[in-house]
Parts: sequence; C-alpha cells; structure tokens
Amino acid sequence: MPSNVRRVEIPTLGPARFASPLKRSTLRGDGLGRFIAESRWVRHAIDLDESHPAPEELLFEKAGARERLFFDPAKTRAAVVTCGGLCPGLNNVIRSIFLELAMNYGVPEVLGIRYGYEGLNPKVGLPPLRLSMEYVDNIHEEGGSVLGSSRGEQDPAVIVDFLQQRKIDVLFCVGGDGTQRGAHRIHEEVHRRGLPIAVVGIPKTIDNDIAYCEQSFGLITAVEQADAVLRGAHAEARGARNGIGLVKVMGRDAGFIAALATLASQEVNFTLIPELPFALDGPGGFLAALERRILDRQHALIVVAEGAGQDLMGTKCQARDASGNLLHNDVGPFLKGRIAEHFAARGIPVSIKYIDPSYTIRSVSANCEDSILCDQFARRAVHAAMAGKTDVLVCTCHRTFIHVPIAMATASKRRVDVEGEMWSLVLSATGQPPRFG
Amino acid sequence: MPSNVRRVEIPTLGPARFASPLKRSTLRGDGLGRFIAESRWVRHAIDLDESHPAPEELLFEKAGARERLFFDPAKTRAAVVTCGGLCPGLNNVIRSIFLELAMNYGVPEVLGIRYGYEGLNPKVGLPPLRLSMEYVDNIHEEGGSVLGSSRGEQDPAVIVDFLQQRKIDVLFCVGGDGTQRGAHRIHEEVHRRGLPIAVVGIPKTIDNDIAYCEQSFGLITAVEQADAVLRGAHAEARGARNGIGLVKVMGRDAGFIAALATLASQEVNFTLIPELPFALDGPGGFLAALERRILDRQHALIVVAEGAGQDLMGTKCQARDASGNLLHNDVGPFLKGRIAEHFAARGIPVSIKYIDPSYTIRSVSANCEDSILCDQFARRAVHAAMAGKTDVLVCTCHRTFIHVPIAMATASKRRVDVEGEMWSLVLSATGQPPRFG
Amino acid sequence: MPSNVRRVEIPTLGPARFASPLKRSTLRGDGLGRFIAESRWVRHAIDLDESHPAPEELLFEKAGARERLFFDPAKTRAAVVTCGGLCPGLNNVIRSIFLELAMNYGVPEVLGIRYGYEGLNPKVGLPPLRLSMEYVDNIHEEGGSVLGSSRGEQDPAVIVDFLQQRKIDVLFCVGGDGTQRGAHRIHEEVHRRGLPIAVVGIPKTIDNDIAYCEQSFGLITAVEQADAVLRGAHAEARGARNGIGLVKVMGRDAGFIAALATLASQEVNFTLIPELPFALDGPGGFLAALERRILDRQHALIVVAEGAGQDLMGTKCQARDASGNLLHNDVGPFLKGRIAEHFAARGIPVSIKYIDPSYTIRSVSANCEDSILCDQFARRAVHAAMAGKTDVLVCTCHRTFIHVPIAMATASKRRVDVEGEMWSLVLSATGQPPRFG
Amino acid sequence: MPSNVRRVEIPTLGPARFASPLKRSTLRGDGLGRFIAESRWVRHAIDLDESHPAPEELLFEKAGARERLFFDPAKTRAAVVTCGGLCPGLNNVIRSIFLELAMNYGVPEVLGIRYGYEGLNPKVGLPPLRLSMEYVDNIHEEGGSVLGSSRGEQDPAVIVDFLQQRKIDVLFCVGGDGTQRGAHRIHEEVHRRGLPIAVVGIPKTIDNDIAYCEQSFGLITAVEQADAVLRGAHAEARGARNGIGLVKVMGRDAGFIAALATLASQEVNFTLIPELPFALDGPGGFLAALERRILDRQHALIVVAEGAGQDLMGTKCQARDASGNLLHNDVGPFLKGRIAEHFAARGIPVSIKYIDPSYTIRSVSANCEDSILCDQFARRAVHAAMAGKTDVLVCTCHRTFIHVPIAMATASKRRVDVEGEMWSLVLSATGQPPRFG
Repeated sequence: MPSNVRRVEIPTLGPARFASPLKRSTLRGDGLGRFIAESRWVRHAIDLDESHPAPEELLFEKAGARERLFFDPAKTRAAVVTCGGLCPGLNNVIRSIFLELAMNYGVPEVLGIRYGYEGLNPKVGLPPLRLSMEYVDNIHEEGGSVLGSSRGEQDPAVIVDFLQQRKIDVLFCVGGDGTQRGAHRIHEEVHRRGLPIAVVGIPKTIDNDIAYCEQSFGLITAVEQADAVLRGAHAEARGARNGIGLVKVMGRDAGFIAALATLASQEVNFTLIPELPFALDGPGGFLAALERRILDRQHALIVVAEGAGQDLMGTKCQARDASGNLLHNDVGPFLKGRIAEHFAARGIPVSIKYIDPSYTIRSVSANCEDSILCDQFARRAVHAAMAGKTDVLVCTCHRTFIHVPIAMATASKRRVDVEGEMWSLVLSATGQPPRFG
Repeated sequence: MPSNVRRVEIPTLGPARFASPLKRSTLRGDGLGRFIAESRWVRHAIDLDESHPAPEELLFEKAGARERLFFDPAKTRAAVVTCGGLCPGLNNVIRSIFLELAMNYGVPEVLGIRYGYEGLNPKVGLPPLRLSMEYVDNIHEEGGSVLGSSRGEQDPAVIVDFLQQRKIDVLFCVGGDGTQRGAHRIHEEVHRRGLPIAVVGIPKTIDNDIAYCEQSFGLITAVEQADAVLRGAHAEARGARNGIGLVKVMGRDAGFIAALATLASQEVNFTLIPELPFALDGPGGFLAALERRILDRQHALIVVAEGAGQDLMGTKCQARDASGNLLHNDVGPFLKGRIAEHFAARGIPVSIKYIDPSYTIRSVSANCEDSILCDQFARRAVHAAMAGKTDVLVCTCHRTFIHVPIAMATASKRRVDVEGEMWSLVLSATGQPPRFG
Repeated sequence: MPSNVRRVEIPTLGPARFASPLKRSTLRGDGLGRFIAESRWVRHAIDLDESHPAPEELLFEKAGARERLFFDPAKTRAAVVTCGGLCPGLNNVIRSIFLELAMNYGVPEVLGIRYGYEGLNPKVGLPPLRLSMEYVDNIHEEGGSVLGSSRGEQDPAVIVDFLQQRKIDVLFCVGGDGTQRGAHRIHEEVHRRGLPIAVVGIPKTIDNDIAYCEQSFGLITAVEQADAVLRGAHAEARGARNGIGLVKVMGRDAGFIAALATLASQEVNFTLIPELPFALDGPGGFLAALERRILDRQHALIVVAEGAGQDLMGTKCQARDASGNLLHNDVGPFLKGRIAEHFAARGIPVSIKYIDPSYTIRSVSANCEDSILCDQFARRAVHAAMAGKTDVLVCTCHRTFIHVPIAMATASKRRVDVEGEMWSLVLSATGQPPRFG
Repeated sequence: MPSNVRRVEIPTLGPARFASPLKRSTLRGDGLGRFIAESRWVRHAIDLDESHPAPEELLFEKAGARERLFFDPAKTRAAVVTCGGLCPGLNNVIRSIFLELAMNYGVPEVLGIRYGYEGLNPKVGLPPLRLSMEYVDNIHEEGGSVLGSSRGEQDPAVIVDFLQQRKIDVLFCVGGDGTQRGAHRIHEEVHRRGLPIAVVGIPKTIDNDIAYCEQSFGLITAVEQADAVLRGAHAEARGARNGIGLVKVMGRDAGFIAALATLASQEVNFTLIPELPFALDGPGGFLAALERRILDRQHALIVVAEGAGQDLMGTKCQARDASGNLLHNDVGPFLKGRIAEHFAARGIPVSIKYIDPSYTIRSVSANCEDSILCDQFARRAVHAAMAGKTDVLVCTCHRTFIHVPIAMATASKRRVDVEGEMWSLVLSATGQPPRFG
C-alpha cells in the first residue's frame, strides 16, 4: 500500500449556502439516492503490483450531487458552449445539462452559445439562444451540435465581459484540450476579477486523448462506425484475389479508435497507431509482414490511425489537392502507394481498396452507450457547478466520475500504452508482431 | 394505342421435354401458383401520352417458372460466377440460385466459380467450389461475394472448353455490362459448337445503368448507405458557420445513387450528376448559386456523382497520389478546391467538409428490399435456365420480371432522364435551378 | 390487345385558371422537367396473357405536376390530417406536403390538424398548428406522427363547417380505407354545398391492403422490422434442441408483411396468412408438417399474420387478459398452445419461443425506400390538389403514380394472390406445401 | 484507509511448469506487452468515504496472461459449453476462446459441446464438434449460440467421466449462476478424483445479476434493443391523445436493463424494477402519479422489468394462455389492465400501447461494445485456464478483469442499488418520485 496519499482538490467559489432541491439524502438505508459528501474520494490506482508499490496514491473528488449549493437555483443563469470538431453526443450533453438545470434544480434560464467561443465574443454577432423544452426535445436523436461549433480562441477578457453583461453564473465548456485550456484562461480571468462565476468543463475528444479521462463520450460510437467500415473493407479484401483493405481512421496522437475498432472487428490483420513507430522496409518491416500474410492467406485488412507513420513521410511524398495545394501528410494514400510499389516490385498482383471514412465516424448521433455516458457527464457537470466548483473537468475513472483540475487534465495527453492490456489484446486479435523493424 | 407490336423473343436450346417438378399448375382458381405460359408478355410502355402515340409497342417475355423444362433436373450441373466490383446482394443471389436449383428442382450439383471469369480459365488455377447447404447457410448476411470476383475477360473458347470438361449445363453470370458482353460471347461460342449449354445473365450494377433493367439489386442498399453519409455531412455543414458538406457517391455514367439519395435524405441543396453538365463560373453557375445559398442560410449540402463534371477538369487539375502517380480525374477534390477558391476570392469564410465514402456503400450486405429483389432475380434466372432459355438477361420492368436478350441490354446504357419524374423530384427537393450556366 | 379501353377520370373543382409557378415545361428536349399533360394515362394491365385477353383495359390518370392550376397558390390555405394507426413515414409525408406547398408553389399557410379527424371538430378543442420550416425541420427522422392521430369519424357537416370557417381550400387526408371513406364523405358534403375545396387522399396502410395501390408507404419499413424479428427468432430456434420460433406480424386481412418478410429473411419454414385458410390437424395439416420438419432438421421458424387462422379459434380458445377481460382471438398464443399440445401428445420435447413484436414494427421512422416513396406520394398529392382534382387518392401502379377515385379505391381490399408470383416465391423459399389440410 | 486487507485467491491445479508461447515480457519499457504477475491485485473498493472507512479491503487476482503455464499447449485439449438462455455475444466468446487457444497458444484441439450440459452427457447422444477456423469464421456476426444451449443440470460424475474419456483438460462454461453452480460441482468432482482438469467460468447474464461482475457481456446490446423499443413506444404514446406506452423488458431479479434503457432513451417517465416495490393505489401510488402525468402532458412512457411488482399479483389476476393453461404472473398485461381500469374509473380516455419485445432483445448479435467485451472475457478465460487456475469465474471490476472463485460469485445476486448513482440518474431522467406509496 502506498505510504503517501495525495488528495486532488478543486477550487470552489465560496461556501455552499443553499440546500439542494434534489430529493436525496445523506443517510444509508432510507431508500433515497445519496448526496455525495465532500469526504468521498476515488482512487486513481486500482490495479496494484505488490512487487512494485507506487510511491504515491492519488485520490480525486468523487463527482455527483452535493447536499448544499453555492448558487441559489432560482437566481442562476447558465450557459453551454460546444467547441472544436464534431463528436457524437454533443446534443445529448446539451440536452441533459438543460434538463438537469431546468427540471431538477429549477434554474430559470439556460443559454446556448452559438458556434463555440465565437459566440461569447459580441463582435462576432452571434447572440445566444435561450434553451427550452421544445428546443431540446429531439436533439439527442441528431448528430452534430445544434448550437454549432468552431475552432480557436477568443480573448478571455472579452468573454468575461460578456458573461458579466449577460449575468451568466455558470459556463459549461464542452470541448477538447484546446477548449479546456481556453476554459482555464476564462477561469483565471474570472478569478482575477473576483467574480462568482463557475467554469466547468466536459471533455470532448473523439480520439480519447485527454489525460485522467478514461473514456470520453463519442469514442465508442466512433469505434462502432469504424468497425462497420472495417467490415466493408474486409468484404472488399476477400472479394478479390490478393485483396488488401486499407482503412484510415481518426486518431492524431492516440490510436484508441484504431485499437478498439480492431477488437470490435476481430478481422484486422495489422493495426498501426501513432504510439508505435514502424518500419516499412526490411525483413522485419511492415511490408514484408504484409507480403507474408498475402502469400499465406490471399487477403489482408489494415487499419491505420491518421497520426501513425508521420515520421516516414518526407516532403517529396506529400499529396497535392486538385488545385495544386500542398496537403498535410496523409498516411492513407502514402501507405497505399508504398504497398502498391512493394507488390509491383515483387511481381505479386494485388487489389488494394483504400477507404477514408473521414467525418462519417464523428457526425452520427450517439449510440446507446454514449447516450448513457453523455447523460452522466452532463448531470455531474451541473452538480459540480451548482455546488460552486470551478476550473474543473468532469472525468471518468474506472467507470466512476471524478473532478479533475483543468490544468492537470490538459498538462499531458492520454495515449495507448503499448505495454498495456488493450494493446496486448490487439496483438492477440491481429497476430501482428509487437514491432515492425 | 400503338399499331405495331414487337415481341422480343429469347433463343432456346431446344424443345422443352421434361415436366417441371415444381408444385404449380396452369389453371386459375385451384389455389396453386401458376406456371408462366409462353403466351405471357410484359408491356414495356405503361405510361401513354395520347397526344404522342408511340410508333411501336415492345413486349418482353415474362420471366418465371415454366411448366416444361429443357434440362432434366436430376442430370443437370450448374455453375455460378460473380464478376466485376462488389455490389450488395451478390451472396443472396448465389444462395437463392443454389437453393432453387437444389431444393426445388432437385439439381444435384451446383458449382461456385472462384474470382470471376478467371475461375473459368484452368490456367489460373482456381478450381470451383461445390456449393452445399452448409456453405450457403449464412452467406446472405455478409457483404461481398463469397466466391470472389475479378474484372476483365477470358478467352470464350477456353471458357467453353472448361464448361465441356466439367460437364456444366448452365452458367449463371452475375455482373455488369462488361460481364454480360462476356456472357454473350460465351453463348456465341457455345452456339458455334452446337452445345446444349444455357448462359443466363443476372444484371449487377450498383450504378443501375443497364438498359431495360429498371432496378438492379444493390442500388437501394447503396442509396441507403449514401443517405447515411449525407446525414453526417448535413450535421457537419450545420455544425459550423457557413458549413459546406460535399459528398461524392458512385455513379460513373448514371446519377441514380446521387438522385435517389437526395430524395431519401431531403436535406441536399445541390445534386450533380453525369447526365447534366454544369458550369461552375458566371452568374448562372454553380458557384454563384452556392454562394447565394450560403449567404441566405449559412450552410449547404452538395452531393456529386463521380462521373459528373468530367468536362470541367483539364490535365492541370489532376490530383496525384502520395507516390506521385497521376490519378483519374476525381471530381470530389476538384470541386472542393474550386469551392474553396471561390469563397476565398469572395472573402467569405467557409468550412468545407468533403466526404468520399468510396467502397463503403457497396461492400455492405443487402438491405431488406434488396434481399427480396435478389431472391427474385435468382429464382427467375433458374427458371429461365431450366426451360432452356439462353443468351438472356433477367431484368425488372415496372416491378415485373422479364427476359431481355443480352445483346439488346448491353447495346446502350440506362441513364437518369433529366426531363423525367425522378429528376423533377430532385429539383423539387433541392430547390436547385434546372441548369447551372 | 383489349378491345375496350376505359379511362378512369377524376372530378375537378373547375377550370384550371392559373399558371403553375414550377420551373417545368411541356416540351421535350429542352432539359426541363415536364408537366404532366391531361393526355397522359397509365395502363393498369402490364402483364398480358395472349391466350386469355382481358375484356377491358383500364387507364388511370397519371399523377404529377400540371401546367395550369385551379388554385392561386398565393391565396391558398391547405391542411393536413393523419388518421388511424401509426405507420412509418407519416412525418415524411407531412414534411414533403408542407415543403412542396410552401417552397415550390409559394402557398403561404399550411395547417397541421391535431389527432386525426378529431382535430377537425371544434368541439374537441384541438386547434390546428401552423406548420413552418422550423417545425418540420427534423420530423422525418422520427417515427409516429407529429400531428398525432386518432381512429373514428366525425360528422362531415361539422368538418366542412370547420373548413369553411378556417378558409381551408385543400385538405390532405392521410389514412387507411376508413379514413378515405371519411374523406369521400367530406368531399360529398363539400360538393353538396358547391364549395371549391379539394379533398385529396394519401393511402396509409401498413398492411398494404388498399385496392389499386400497389405499394403503400411504411410497408417495406415494417417488413424490414419484421425481418429483424425473424432473424432473432431463427437464432432462438437454432439455439435449442427442437427449437420452434413463432412470430406474429401485422396483417389483419392481407398477409403482405408476412409474405415479404419471409422473402427478405429466407429463413422461414412456414408462412401463414389470412388469404389461405389452413387445417391444423390430420396428416396434411400444419402440425404434421411442422412435426416432419422438426424431426428432420430439429428447428423451425414460423411467421403468422394476425388475421390468419381466425376460423380455427372458437370461443373456448379465447385468451383472457390479466384482469379477466375477454380478448379478441389472438392467433399467436392460440398457435403456440396448439403446437405445444401436439408435441406433448407426440412425446417430442420442443422449445417454443413466441414473439409478438406488435407496435414495434410500425412506430419506427421510415427507412430509405419509404422515405423516397413518402416524398413521391406527398408531392404528387400537392400537384393533384393545386390542379383542382378532388375526391382522389394518389396511388402507385407499376412504380408509377396515378389518380384513383376514392370510392373506387375503397370498394374492395387488396390481398395477396395465392396463385400469383409473390406467393409462389414464398413457397419456393419456405418449401411449405401449397395447402395444409 | 482500511486496516485489513483480504486477498481472494484462486485454486490452481499445480505448479506452472511450461513457458508461455505468447510474445510478452515481464519487463517495463521494452515495448512488449506484459505478462500479469501473481503479485498483481485489483482493489474491489475504489470509491472511499473517509467518514465511513470500510472495515476490510478486498483484493482480487488480476486476470490476464501468465508467464508460466500449467498445461503444455501442444498437448492440451479444450472444450467450450454454452448454457441457459441466449445472450448477445455467445458466438463471439466461442470464437475468441478458439482463436486464442489455437492461434496464440497453439492448442491443437478445441471442442464445441452441443446444447449446453446435455452435450456432456453421452446418453443424450450429442457428440461435440471440433472447432476450426472455417467453422468460427463468421459466427460472431450471428445472434444465438452456434453450439446450441439448454437449461438444467447433468450429473457431475457423468460429466467428469465424459471429460476423462475425451481427454479434455480444460472446460470453459459460459452461463449464468445456475450454470456456474454446475461448473463448481464439476470442479468438485474433478477435485475429488484428483484430476488435472481446469474448470473456468465466463459469466453470461443478460440481467447483469452475477455478483462481483460489474458488467456482463450482452447487457449493453440488450439495452440498445430495449432503447429502440422504447423509442417506438414513445412515438406511439405521442401519436395518440393521452397515449400511454408500456414496455416490459427482461430483468427477473435485477432491473439493470430497465434502468440503463431509461438512461439511454431519456424519454421514459416511469421505470419500475424488482428492487423497488411500488404501490399502485392511493394518492402516493403509481396510478395517481401516472394520472397526474397524463393530465399534465397528455402522454407517458413506462418501462417495467419483468420481475417488478410480483407481490401485487394474486392468483385471481393470473393470465391464462389460449389453451387455458395457467401462466406465470406476467406484470405487463397486469399493469396494462390496472392502468386501463384506473383511467376508465376516472373517466379519462387513454390509449394504452403495450409492447413485450421478449426474446428480440437477447437473440441479436453483439453490438460493438459487447464484441470488445466478449473478446476480453474469452481471452482472459483462456489465460486463466492455461495457467492452471480452476473453479474460477472471469469477472469485470471497474473496467478491469479479475478472477473470482465461482462459489463466491454464486453466493448472492447483483442488484440495482436504489440508493446508488445509477438509480439516482434514473430518477433525474424520469422525474418520478423516489417511491410510490
């Protein structure tokens, strides 16, 4: 057992002065749901190695409804903003935030900020919407974000001016690490001015690469979409002699979608992710392994995360678009080209089918599991905000929800551990060697 | 009423000498399904214009079970070959051909030819499979073709040698117009040698471009897939300020997938197909219309068939792949580039999301409607073959199945009639002008 | 060729005095979609038997946009009502009616009547909604009817009073044969009063049992749902020794859903429909055939339409609900009971899994094909109404849309022809005998 | 922090004498996946309440690949048996067990036992299948169990005789608590005879009611299916005035499917589960709450788990089937009847739509998430068996996999904690009171 325990605490706007209107209790055995006491902590380490004891044990605040609130619900005005690329479940999050605030806490006004942080800058000219039961009625059935989204920052001072002018007490920021860094800067400006405004983040990353957040919403829906694409690519690969299906999926820095889609599909022979550099050439390289597979089984299925193999592409390999503009290094066509060259040089006819599903895996509505997950993120973000927590990200840890300081969550990125269990399962399913090269 | 009636007749291998084993009758009112008499014809023209009477009326043979057969089922050996690109429903067709032959006619042996016409050339070294109940059990749940497919021809003389050696009496050729031209050449060689071998075609064209075949299998499944992609692109377009979703779908010479997906989706603003050339520039051009849409509604959704706008792309616009190889003109990136240039020049920020679902719309398993359609094509092809019809394609006409001589079906291509009703519905749904330019 | 031709004509409210605003022409070859001239007719008989020539040929008016209109679009007020049980596609129909009227004809006001004909009776107190772009935006993604529905009639005089008071010029009635009979009575009252109000029907029957309408919307979506249920029942049947899957589907008087789901599934062994009475007992009965199947293959899958076998159930067999109330004869539990008794008496252990998907096959949103079909019904109903056609039902005939007088369409019911091709395909797929008994 | 730590240990067949053939290591940082050392433990308690410290901390063995094996893979024969009712994912489990054994460990023979424990009794006459790559190829795409299943026990002595005769070294038992109790008895007989046979259980419970197993496979697929049914019932409820949708879902002793489907749907107004008794009558009863909802909103959606409200049904309320046989108490029709009576007595017309999806939620193939989960259960069961662990159930705990002694897992049932977080989320989503009565 670790000798040192560190409790990760979250700043609050001040003492909790109001009783929660939720029908819960602090007792056990009375049949009512329990408020989460401030004495509740969640262990970050669940999996112990007695022969390598950890030097420190990290405890996070357990997320959930508090018995006492900082904000008086009847006098609170909240706002929600969605930023960055689309992700399945954004509308579910918006809807559950609204419903929890309006139906359960009785908050009279919830605003929807238009098109990301741009909607918090009055100069852009996009006034917020006032959310209502009618507005949110069916939005969880739709992909995308009904509020719209955008990338990029706005001046925190401008945003805080806006919050003050609009008398917004709570701002929910749904977005990735860039968005959360922006949320942290808004918090800093709020704090500098000494304002009682809560800034609560909800992690949105289809790549699942936010630190301290085990599973972000949208991931499993994206995996389901990717799995469907893999199924088609498998049919293509089998439908031709020496057929090779090559699928590129999202995953700039982290290969979670590629890895999990491999586990869901159980048909993939090679999974390439950013965390694991690979050599193409040589007897231990990827191309030789692919050749062995083709000679042995006459078809192969490859999934590559977009961030994989970036080191392999020099400037001369870069694709150009129809207008002659230089594109970023795109590993899909690069790999397709190198595979084609290899087999041409070896005199082995192959039929390569390359599929880039691009936005189709992120623009669908949330599947069943993500719908449940979104609801949990959203309602817990509301609980945190109403209790006066701020500069906080609601995260999942071992299927439990916790509070993580935004700065802590954005200081690093979550990646696939190539010595960990998920990647071992990928190797078991694909039969690929642990390394190429 | 037309004064001249032309009956399109199908060659037969000889007199029908065997009684069909199917439990049907030629009587009306006895509660049994009816055999199709040779006196049954299907009118090609259903929709009359009394002010423009047609000079000639075309009648096709009605497909279906015949009372008397050319082949003795107990002594018949059949083979099935699937050629060309994948299409949803190939496995359903294989399965229903096998089941109708084996279970209902009692044909003892049905062979599955491997990898298209290559499997009919012994030099390629791909011996056929013997189909069985176990083999076909669940194949209709899978996309692709369990037999494999390939493109290209083989020498008809070699193929007919193979048919003779293997004692194959009936060959079912599932494929597009190239495949059917090949089937016709096989028939000619069979005929030249005076052999009693039936060659029966089943049209497979995801583009729906085979003449005299109103709806080929796989089309509506492809439309369903394309519709799903359009839904995502619509979410992307709405999720950003001045968002433009651009989706490329299959359709080399015919825009059926693009047009029908537009009708299914009801969210598309511009549909571009090969049958209707369009200008990009000028006040009546596509780009000006798109600009008006964006200024008016702040988002737009475009679907373009791969064969559209080929005339607009000169050699300088051609994309290159990652290895520097010249690609065929790809209208998707070309259009994306021209849209980006246009709005950049006009100083209007837009967010363009381009999606090319490519093979994903053809490699899925058949949907419910296509499953029904495949079963109908397959069983009627069996009926035609057992009755000794040859050089024949089984086609749909006004929801009825007919026999079409292969040469007649491959003499032209079916295209979208831009003055017809389907395209009028597209214009009604999109609100786009009848022409650009 | 038939010697007598009968043209089925539709009453109109008066001369067409206004030019259509649609961008179409009457010319061929100008690249514009064509208006449908009044000289266009659709043949009801497409499939000829030269040895049994029909005594009379029926021609129906071709549906579609007319060049000249009875109503001035700028001064027209329309209303839509949905009646009877839910059916996939109701919202698509509502949406396309609205969009065609508002966007293409420029009709300024379209009302949505609440909860069926009840909403046309002011005493019920359900004022109509005014439809708008925002209201219909995403409704086609949802099952059910956003307007609500109800069963039963209202006094035609009360309804016509309402239409007059609300200055409604066009009433679109979406419903089954009961609804259409009601629409006909509304028309009669309108006609008696000499009012220029058009009553246009759109057939809605998940059972597909409206005469002269080849395929009504919602059918294929229901079949798809039923097919999915059959797939599960097949897994259940196979998962147990002597497993019997028994699925009841909708189909009170017509077995289209059961028959088509059988063709889609290709796993069913017995299909029972109202059109074909069957005996349970005796050597030729259903139970003996089922026993042979079980002894031979150890599993079986049965689909029964709700209206099948009603003659077999006497009063003593009637089920009672949990409160002891007598239920209508429910063939599902009846058949399950008789099967269980039979095998118990024969000493053969079986595992029967009975599934009644009930409303789940009708409450989903329209699938891709039905979405296209709904759009076609809706826009053609608008064209008919604007041209002043009345007392008319828009129907499909050989994939073309026609106008059918409501009284003609409701005079009989469409049923499965047990000597026709679809049922022969069912027998081919199931292998069941043509008759039981 | 708890002062007492209890390690839950698993019996092994003897010392691990063989090196694992898996390409993993025990080192950190070498890029290879790690073997799981016997010093690895998983904490059962992750969520601490510092004001209520637990008296004891439970540690479970971490599941996963061991460096050294008890069995020599080249000489091992394994068998898999699936028992009890169907559950999504059974075929995935069979497939991954086979693939892990055959492809990764090199086990030469894996048998598939037919129809549950019956297939282990030679008198029943169902010899096992020998699994192969061809056999398992596409089975994960299908619902059900390709091996078949059955309920009930067989004599452990007979089974162990069979294992000895067939020289089976490892038996994988996939099933619920009854099955696992049977597995434990097999282990006891094996142990009594001193045989080196490993018995490894994989929990299969669609109700998710096995103790110490946080999420069993199939659950989330069932929830997805139930969610789809709820969506239809919601459309039905909204489509009629005072429409009431009532859906019964699986859940004999535990309401997980009902609760999670409520969270996924976010449309349910009342969720009734076995864990929470409810009163129907009186001002605080369910019927009064439903009446308030109907008067307030005109529609309502109810989901009831099959095991809920059993105490409310006396003998007089029991339904009878079509043959007059007494059925078990079925809460669905009972509740429908009581609701109908209540509103009839109150003079409020309602339209009740009752849906019992029954087997349809369990006979589908595994969804994406369950596919991943099944693979994990299966491969870890293989790792446990090869290491010589026995009498062990592979379970999930906080998203990690652990070993649980079978007797410990079957000593109690897992249930919904009505004071816990999931149920609080249900109350937040439905707005229903914490209790009825």
